[in-house]
Amino acid sequence: MSVNRLIYLPLGGAGEIGMNCYVYGYGPEGRERLIVVDLGVTFPDMDGSPGVDLIMADISWLEARADRIDGIFITHAHEDHIGALGLLWPKLKSRVYARRFTANIGKLKLDEMGLPLDVITTVDPRPAVVQAGPFEVQFVPVSHSIPEASALVIDTPAGRIFHSGDFKIDHNPIVGEPWDDEAIKAIGEERPVKVLMCDSTNVFSTHPGRSESTLGTALRELISSRGGMVVATTFGSNVARLKTLAEAARASDRSICVLGRSMRRMLSVSEETGVLTGFPRLVSPEEALDIPRGNLMLLVTGSQGERRAASAQLSRGKYLGLQMKEGDTFLFSSKVIPGNERGVLKIMNAFSEMGVDVVDDCNGLYHVSGHANRPDLEHVHRLLLPDMLIPMHGEHRHLREHVKIATAAGIAAEVATNGMMMDLTGEVPTVVEYIETGRLYLDGNVLIGSMDGVVRDRIRMALNGHAMVTVILDEADEPLGEAWVELSGLPAVGRGERNLAETLETDLSAYLETAGAKVLRDDAKLDEALRRIVRQVSMEEIGKKPEVTVVVSRLQAE
Amino acid sequence: MSVNRLIYLPLGGAGEIGMNCYVYGYGPEGRERLIVVDLGVTFPDMDGSPGVDLIMADISWLEARADRIDGIFITHAHEDHIGALGLLWPKLKSRVYARRFTANIGKLKLDEMGLPLDVITTVDPRPAVVQAGPFEVQFVPVSHSIPEASALVIDTPAGRIFHSGDFKIDHNPIVGEPWDDEAIKAIGEERPVKVLMCDSTNVFSTHPGRSESTLGTALRELISSRGGMVVATTFGSNVARLKTLAEAARASDRSICVLGRSMRRMLSVSEETGVLTGFPRLVSPEEALDIPRGNLMLLVTGSQGERRAASAQLSRGKYLGLQMKEGDTFLFSSKVIPGNERGVLKIMNAFSEMGVDVVDDCNGLYHVSGHANRPDLEHVHRLLLPDMLIPMHGEHRHLREHVKIATAAGIAAEVATNGMMMDLTGEVPTVVEYIETGRLYLDGNVLIGSMDGVVRDRIRMALNGHAMVTVILDEADEPLGEAWVELSGLPAVGRGERNLAETLETDLSAYLETAGAKVLRDDAKLDEALRRIVRQVSMEEIGKKPEVTVVVSRLQAE
Repeated sequence: MSVNRLIYLPLGGAGEIGMNCYVYGYGPEGRERLIVVDLGVTFPDMDGSPGVDLIMADISWLEARADRIDGIFITHAHEDHIGALGLLWPKLKSRVYARRFTANIGKLKLDEMGLPLDVITTVDPRPAVVQAGPFEVQFVPVSHSIPEASALVIDTPAGRIFHSGDFKIDHNPIVGEPWDDEAIKAIGEERPVKVLMCDSTNVFSTHPGRSESTLGTALRELISSRGGMVVATTFGSNVARLKTLAEAARASDRSICVLGRSMRRMLSVSEETGVLTGFPRLVSPEEALDIPRGNLMLLVTGSQGERRAASAQLSRGKYLGLQMKEGDTFLFSSKVIPGNERGVLKIMNAFSEMGVDVVDDCNGLYHVSGHANRPDLEHVHRLLLPDMLIPMHGEHRHLREHVKIATAAGIAAEVATNGMMMDLTGEVPTVVEYIETGRLYLDGNVLIGSMDGVVRDRIRMALNGHAMVTVILDEADEPLGEAWVELSGLPAVGRGERNLAETLETDLSAYLETAGAKVLRDDAKLDEALRRIVRQVSMEEIGKKPEVTVVVSRLQAE
Repeated sequence: MSVNRLIYLPLGGAGEIGMNCYVYGYGPEGRERLIVVDLGVTFPDMDGSPGVDLIMADISWLEARADRIDGIFITHAHEDHIGALGLLWPKLKSRVYARRFTANIGKLKLDEMGLPLDVITTVDPRPAVVQAGPFEVQFVPVSHSIPEASALVIDTPAGRIFHSGDFKIDHNPIVGEPWDDEAIKAIGEERPVKVLMCDSTNVFSTHPGRSESTLGTALRELISSRGGMVVATTFGSNVARLKTLAEAARASDRSICVLGRSMRRMLSVSEETGVLTGFPRLVSPEEALDIPRGNLMLLVTGSQGERRAASAQLSRGKYLGLQMKEGDTFLFSSKVIPGNERGVLKIMNAFSEMGVDVVDDCNGLYHVSGHANRPDLEHVHRLLLPDMLIPMHGEHRHLREHVKIATAAGIAAEVATNGMMMDLTGEVPTVVEYIETGRLYLDGNVLIGSMDGVVRDRIRMALNGHAMVTVILDEADEPLGEAWVELSGLPAVGRGERNLAETLETDLSAYLETAGAKVLRDDAKLDEALRRIVRQVSMEEIGKKPEVTVVVSRLQAE
């Protein structure tokens, strides 16, 4: 008789914030039945992934075991949890479970990819149970910064797992269910929690988190004190914030216009699923043009400085006929995610040049986080009293700090980063295998591996420029004419005011004239020799070595 | 008789933080005698200036008027004030004035470029006066985060200017002269200050700034509480911080080893100029290897996550024989400059993976800023009681906020950004001309203009990839063989698993077969047609349009 084991394998989101994808397995080693929690994306940047559209976990390991997957569970509809559903589902083809709001967002993603929508099953919250192979899964409402965020209770023959998802403790979240200490505590009383997988995002924030409801007064005061048009940005999915902002606008007799597709989409799904009611009627951008500026508020996308979002568009001038001007106010009801500072500052300065007053979150006056802070995490540890804790949703430093806290409280805790398969069957989590993981890039409409070299070549061209050499050889392997050089991303003129392309052509042609037949006959040798000359001469002329592409054309006797 | 006027022209540093370069002029319009204050650099980033080594102000306007320059004054030795001296001096060839420490750093920069060192005159602080054409200039010691930082008193026939340079109010700066309210106040009493040009960096910080001396106790406690090796990073030029850190290390019996050329250079110039005394003896990296970890502290460069600096090197493994490990501590006695977050977080996480405890500035416990905060700025306004104020050393939002503050205090204030020439002769500052300004890039060893298209092409290749097409035509303008396509930074395989290069070659060759003589004969038309096919087919195959370089080789009858 084979021994069953309970395993956990993060493929994304553990050792980074983004592209969440976690796997649980139960069964005999190598034949475990599997469930997947979340299929998220992360966003590219120029430093590491120029030109890429989206980044997601490389799920090759799962794909190879697709026949063992008993379900995909999506905790909530943030892009880092659901963004890859349409792109990765075809590799897994398993049934998807989510609560109504999340499911509806998921269906939009499947629809965009032309996939069937009925693979998603809408699930009610606990006590409703999804049976998925050896797993019994319940969705537990938690407060976060998007409607219907959920933790998961995952029951297995080896014990109960509490997968926190993204959460905060908010007793008055404006939209959705308040955090309920008793309900969470009851989960551990009903059946002891063997393992807590826990959000680690805000583990370094030492003060207790604040409720979404603490913002209303300050936002009302700010918006009513302003004379011109007020434009506010926040995450489009933060429907509670949109509601608070809209109500503050109404309180000072402002009509509300929403700019940005993702925000409009979130609002309409919120209304159609009933999580949002009583939201003020919106005016269209055309209607907004006829409303006095002092009676208008725009709610816009682009709180992270995204180049194509409404905020950035407005910072560059007229957008959908609307334009910021002196006396207007632009409010970031948001925090900058590390790495997005440059884009956000660029927008702030552009508005400053227009005479617009830019207001940031003012140290939390106009924004609260959607994640549990350190004291809140400790509180949840105490509510659930798990035997083990594995931190997730964090960079390595967050995970490590979370382990320290848990260990200090007597919980067996371990850092598990992407690819570390943990055996949770016993008393303590144990690493049993390292799975090769990585990232997939959506580039245009193609999925490529981050290690395929495509992006590496782009980065090299961006850093070093690109020199292309064309050489034609005749049937006798003799050069026909001179070498031809085209430069891209390189200075035209080097030291001594010499034209770089011409200098290279001269030196390459001189080389070709004296090169032996052995080299001229051999594509690889010739390529190598020409490449070396280009790099060496460029180093002398301009002080850098470009990327080089050599094209040797050999004319055939016809 | 022509009327003399007093003008101010920022060429860099006004509307940005970095590459400071300010011009003052006095004389008849168009024939003013000029002085230059600071020749700084700013640092490139992958988003906007990939592959570039340094960025500085485009000083073409000054270069064209080099015969009218009566001196270059360097306020202090931070790179954003002195970094371009060696690179731009040859365009100006005017005498350079600085205090001793700054002058010695400046000489190292000239020396690196093989320039004569005696163009720099070392100047004593006020009351010493430099006569430079119609200008009388005095260096006023101010506290900052580098030795011998100075404001400038610039006397002109039209009145007195106080150019603040970078400064903070610090009555106990550890190294160098304390801030002296009386001495500053005396400047305005001696002769009324017509214009205050004022540092704006920290205008959004609403609490009064803190003294460098407030860090000693906390740093001593932190360092003595740690068991393993302690590694601390800060700006190499912050000699006071290095002293505080070194003394804290000595207090817990730690030997000190410095890693990083720029930091060693700052320490040695500080000692040779007498601004730093009693600094503990340093041990070499080789010696450090024999010292128990608990008795060792490394002071290292790279507080901003710079890839090649010591911090980043240590985060990647062994560096000069030294290696971080579990139980060690890494301290950022510094703040992240906006835009550098990704690099710093990468290092923090790499250390976390090694089991190293990473400590950041802990909300100012281990770091203070070198710039005056808002209440300090207001204090200086009151000390000097200027008629006018022009903010500098700030992004647009900083300058605008600073103007608001000054205006509220009854001072005539205006935002002047790079290229805005202001006439300061009258009662209020007036814009008289917009000068074309911009940025110069040091790229390898070549200076290129930011608008030359070189960097634009690099960014495009990074975002879109690069496709190179080679076509050979014979003497009769008939295609010889097929089109050849090389791809760089593009996926090899597109939709339907078709090889992209082959698909392109097939389609291009098919086009060539049917193309009319009119196109085949015309390089521009052919180039355009082939380029369009590549972009269109790529869009279909991979969902993006690459940059395209077409090489048409025409064989000549010999």
